[in-house]
Amino acid sequence: MVHAAWLPPEAFRSVGSRHTVVHGDGPLVDTVLAELRAATGRHGGTVRHGGEAGAAPLDLVLALSATPLPPSPQSQVAARVRAEAGSTGAEGFVLARRDGITVLLADTPAGLLYGLFQLARLGEPAFTGHRPAEHHRPALHRRIVNDWDNVDVHPVMGQVERGYAGGSIVWRDGVQRTDLSRVAGYARLLASCGINGLAVNNVNVHAGEAHLLTDRLGEVEAVAGLLRPYGIRIHLSVNFASPVRLGGLPTADPLDERVRDWWAHTTRRVYQTIPDFGGYLVKADSEGQPGPFAYGRTHADGANMLADALAPFGGVVHWRAFVYNHHQDWRDRGTDRARAAYDHFVPLDGEFRDNAVLQVKHGPLDFQTREPVSPVIAAMPRTRVAVELQATQEYTGQQRHVCYLAPMWRTVLGFQPWGEGGPTVARVAAGDAGPAGPAGTGGGGLVCVSNVGDDPYWTGHPLAQANLYAFGRLTWDPTLDPAAILDEWIELTFQPDDTADPQTLRRTLHELMDSSWQTYEQYTAPLGVGFMVRPGHHYGPDVDGYEYSPWGTYHFADRDGIGVDRTRATGTGYTGQYPAPWSDIYESLGTCPDELLLFFHHVPYQHVLHSGRTVIQHIYDTHFAGARRTEQMRELWRDLPAGLVDPALYARVGERLDEQVRSAHEWRDQINTYFLRKSGIPDAHGRRIF
Amino acid sequence: MVHAAWLPPEAFRSVGSRHTVVHGDGPLVDTVLAELRAATGRHGGTVRHGGEAGAAPLDLVLALSATPLPPSPQSQVAARVRAEAGSTGAEGFVLARRDGITVLLADTPAGLLYGLFQLARLGEPAFTGHRPAEHHRPALHRRIVNDWDNVDVHPVMGQVERGYAGGSIVWRDGVQRTDLSRVAGYARLLASCGINGLAVNNVNVHAGEAHLLTDRLGEVEAVAGLLRPYGIRIHLSVNFASPVRLGGLPTADPLDERVRDWWAHTTRRVYQTIPDFGGYLVKADSEGQPGPFAYGRTHADGANMLADALAPFGGVVHWRAFVYNHHQDWRDRGTDRARAAYDHFVPLDGEFRDNAVLQVKHGPLDFQTREPVSPVIAAMPRTRVAVELQATQEYTGQQRHVCYLAPMWRTVLGFQPWGEGGPTVARVAAGDAGPAGPAGTGGGGLVCVSNVGDDPYWTGHPLAQANLYAFGRLTWDPTLDPAAILDEWIELTFQPDDTADPQTLRRTLHELMDSSWQTYEQYTAPLGVGFMVRPGHHYGPDVDGYEYSPWGTYHFADRDGIGVDRTRATGTGYTGQYPAPWSDIYESLGTCPDELLLFFHHVPYQHVLHSGRTVIQHIYDTHFAGARRTEQMRELWRDLPAGLVDPALYARVGERLDEQVRSAHEWRDQINTYFLRKSGIPDAHGRRIF
Repeated sequence: MVHAAWLPPEAFRSVGSRHTVVHGDGPLVDTVLAELRAATGRHGGTVRHGGEAGAAPLDLVLALSATPLPPSPQSQVAARVRAEAGSTGAEGFVLARRDGITVLLADTPAGLLYGLFQLARLGEPAFTGHRPAEHHRPALHRRIVNDWDNVDVHPVMGQVERGYAGGSIVWRDGVQRTDLSRVAGYARLLASCGINGLAVNNVNVHAGEAHLLTDRLGEVEAVAGLLRPYGIRIHLSVNFASPVRLGGLPTADPLDERVRDWWAHTTRRVYQTIPDFGGYLVKADSEGQPGPFAYGRTHADGANMLADALAPFGGVVHWRAFVYNHHQDWRDRGTDRARAAYDHFVPLDGEFRDNAVLQVKHGPLDFQTREPVSPVIAAMPRTRVAVELQATQEYTGQQRHVCYLAPMWRTVLGFQPWGEGGPTVARVAAGDAGPAGPAGTGGGGLVCVSNVGDDPYWTGHPLAQANLYAFGRLTWDPTLDPAAILDEWIELTFQPDDTADPQTLRRTLHELMDSSWQTYEQYTAPLGVGFMVRPGHHYGPDVDGYEYSPWGTYHFADRDGIGVDRTRATGTGYTGQYPAPWSDIYESLGTCPDELLLFFHHVPYQHVLHSGRTVIQHIYDTHFAGARRTEQMRELWRDLPAGLVDPALYARVGERLDEQVRSAHEWRDQINTYFLRKSGIPDAHGRRIF
Repeated sequence: MVHAAWLPPEAFRSVGSRHTVVHGDGPLVDTVLAELRAATGRHGGTVRHGGEAGAAPLDLVLALSATPLPPSPQSQVAARVRAEAGSTGAEGFVLARRDGITVLLADTPAGLLYGLFQLARLGEPAFTGHRPAEHHRPALHRRIVNDWDNVDVHPVMGQVERGYAGGSIVWRDGVQRTDLSRVAGYARLLASCGINGLAVNNVNVHAGEAHLLTDRLGEVEAVAGLLRPYGIRIHLSVNFASPVRLGGLPTADPLDERVRDWWAHTTRRVYQTIPDFGGYLVKADSEGQPGPFAYGRTHADGANMLADALAPFGGVVHWRAFVYNHHQDWRDRGTDRARAAYDHFVPLDGEFRDNAVLQVKHGPLDFQTREPVSPVIAAMPRTRVAVELQATQEYTGQQRHVCYLAPMWRTVLGFQPWGEGGPTVARVAAGDAGPAGPAGTGGGGLVCVSNVGDDPYWTGHPLAQANLYAFGRLTWDPTLDPAAILDEWIELTFQPDDTADPQTLRRTLHELMDSSWQTYEQYTAPLGVGFMVRPGHHYGPDVDGYEYSPWGTYHFADRDGIGVDRTRATGTGYTGQYPAPWSDIYESLGTCPDELLLFFHHVPYQHVLHSGRTVIQHIYDTHFAGARRTEQMRELWRDLPAGLVDPALYARVGERLDEQVRSAHEWRDQINTYFLRKSGIPDAHGRRIF
């Protein structure tokens, strides 16, 4: 059994019960037709490809903008919509309903495909009443998922690095799976929420995975063939040292002609095999991966070398900005890991090729539950910047805890680095506030580390599916309301029309998920200080776990206070990496938001927050509240009337909630005990702290 | 290249240059003859087996007590010694020199073998002047080494569990090595310092290792055949669930007849294959290993079942007392892991068979640098108790740090649980203060976890060889002075007669090693509090690493003080497990020894020690001093004149000293910073704390 995620057959009930005609041709039109044939076959409708109107009345017309329409009454409706709507743009579509006909128009086959999934989302309302022409087009051109799959099982990281949903759906035991049907299903899920790119392997490119670029390219080709029908281009993580490791060259120096020739030759071969190959993804000089520093070259030198190799074929290199010293000495208070990406990359602004994208994690550290937005995003006006998010819940409960991430992502994407009224992070990524790329191909885009594995529910925790879905939807429209996205996901996934009490299920899921990120934040590391997780696997609390480590992630708690002084006045100067007004807002205790206080300031436990509580009382209160909230979440699930969801899914969610409750209480007690022992300040409410 | 450890060819120079006759027969006499032939072949002496005196003058006579001596002048000397000396006891020997003849007599061939190695230790002085008859006999009958070797490489623990010297010398890649010559060399090294038993595999018996008992018994037989010529009996760690896992039975209940029959049958087969098999070693109901608790039986039930199976063949079961709850909740202050072995086993005193030995770790926790002696040792007068020591430096620097353990072991073995003048721990283990076993076969004996692997120097750190040597010597005489043992080891290993400046090497090694345990203690966990190591691998500092873990090893440091209250008055009552006077000495702050203060008491940082310093100042002072001392140790080694030791060994020790210096400074800084942050009390001497 593989769970259908948000595309169960019932999701196409409305579409599939209609009489539909499709005008246009192309591989993606074939995909649309295949989807429609499957849906109508199941739900009693019909579908025709072009031609005149038949006997049956038509409900739905899908048409490419350039395809001539036959002179039927339905076509006249479609033609009127076409005339009024104008161009849909690449990948966009127009949806309208008039005179009893629903019309879906697009300039490209991809637009028709995305429109089809929009019809599934709308369900019956797409086929009732009047709908004025609605333009849909993706806010971002580059909407990419990064899988961190290994070919081999890594002794520490497993087969999917930071994977919490089983093994890879592509590889097993070091070889490609013979049955890749789940990859096809994955592609369909991704396309249905708007994704158009997939980097298929881990950014940490180990020995086995390096060969995907050359002698194991056939495996990439096989996956590409399954993504292509859903409009998804494949990308490949490559090892910067490939010319040495695979090519037998004595160097990987990006300015060495032999190296450049090797990449040019190798890339040409990739495109001969996969003509729509998307490009490379590179983690260089980071956490042990090789990079240009070894040759005294800059990261622009490294990225540009690959960009030059890709340019003749329209490919793009995504170069990760996640570069920092992971052998830091905790005794060295002068080094601030949060500064690293900015310090490394901002001086290179303007030096990157048009087809080089700098891929920046949304926060300056590493996908913590709460971080400020990375200052790099606002600091490189002449560089195409992609923003990287993480659906795999490395630091947010590892798909054992409910943690709906869309509210966090929405906060990030809506952040205005230059202050109120200025461009948002999403607009930077879209190229609306920075370089848009050659011929307006968009900015760097949005990227998300996938949370999928070979688990029957795809994501371990069934409710974690919503994160992947939400990411896709936010790439189309970063202004969407997370609760509205969740509504879509609930409707599609659970098809509550079938249930006895759809409102109860919907309400329960919203209560469980809407504020689950805030709940998770409540019972884990407080006030933006980050980490406090068990080293290595990153699950569960360990307040000092990284405090004396080489990883640069410290909280500096002592008997008097806690937090990292990143001010210009007395700290690491990190606040100076932001433009005004944030550089000042974060700098001042008077204006720094509570939720980021300890990220920016070292304060006494008795410091009073804007909320009116002291830091120490905030810690106690939020940890009691967060743990208590997980009990309520479990009760909500237990109280769900039988039959509203599949019993197996019900049981799986229930088990995970048990673990979340256990873990949240462990977090509560470790954190509270740690700070009671250190501060000596009792809880104002006299609750039990061990 | 495999290093010869303490038996280089030169160790037999004096013996090998003599003219020797051996009177007596038996397999171990053959070993003695082979040793003598190799030595004389190299160093110019001669050796004859029995018969009349030849032409050459004789220097050395070895004779079994019962072997008739020929009527030569040398034999007359030997006969006079024999008449005066009387019985040597099993494994003992008598050594004398008179009228220019050195005489070595023994009742058993094993005695001759041990005597031969004593001659090597003595060197030239064995052959000069007059030596009155000296009786040597082992204080303990059971002198056993436990190897924690796995057949397969364990994903976390490696091939040798807690092994810091490479892989197993017995197995590789899941199968037995074809070349077992290092096992033969290991047997010779062990015999030369007095060991007579070896448990060949890890007490954690995983799936592969379990089969050594049955279908892979041939591998045990092969090792036994290499140990036998050196008087060492093989023991086997077995899995308590073997009747289920190997025998296909539905239960491993020790009172079930089918289970008892299976063990009887299986054990019979073991003895058919290995007639001198020593017995079983069992870790049951401990850290995930199966045991009798699953069937509602006691550990006496479990041990006795195996004892009954072994009894017909003279075998002994070693049953480990290392039983505790390793899923403890850190919030549960009522549970004290230190109490566990006593609470589990003392009620069973008197219920164990004569051929069941309870094997007790020397301290109540787990081989920490400083622990009190386990109260179990003094609490089971009707049980044969073996004391388990650990040469593998799990918590004492992992053979990267110099840490000569004989001073710690000497302290343990000389401890008098019933107060001054009473029996020592060594006497309990020898059966002089408890059951001696059937027919006076001795108490439970001494056991040591080995520190050997397939490293060319056997022990990773070349100087760690001295620990294995010292353990063997202490089993013969637990009252030996650690410095004197070290002297022996230096003489044998480095043969300083050959060096230009033997005193410099000897002095340097003593300066490096004599106080190295105290030095290690100085820079690690203070005042007996224990742990503070990185979880999992146990190397390097992590003050809170186990503080919120399920392992039951906590220090309870808060802003005011630190330590575990194990008193009867206000704590866990653990002090009550000791007989007087220790139950009172440990109970009272006024009498508790400084070095164990935090093991027994929770005290404020400002508590004044007997030394006159406060606890906090003691922490700072010892950590600065310990780290500084490692620098001095490195200087001592660097200052060693070239040529005194082999360059490769010199380099290996030098590298390890570099790491020791680095690690000791890391310990110093983490511990000092942790306690400065927590206590807020500055160092009285204003030294730098980060």
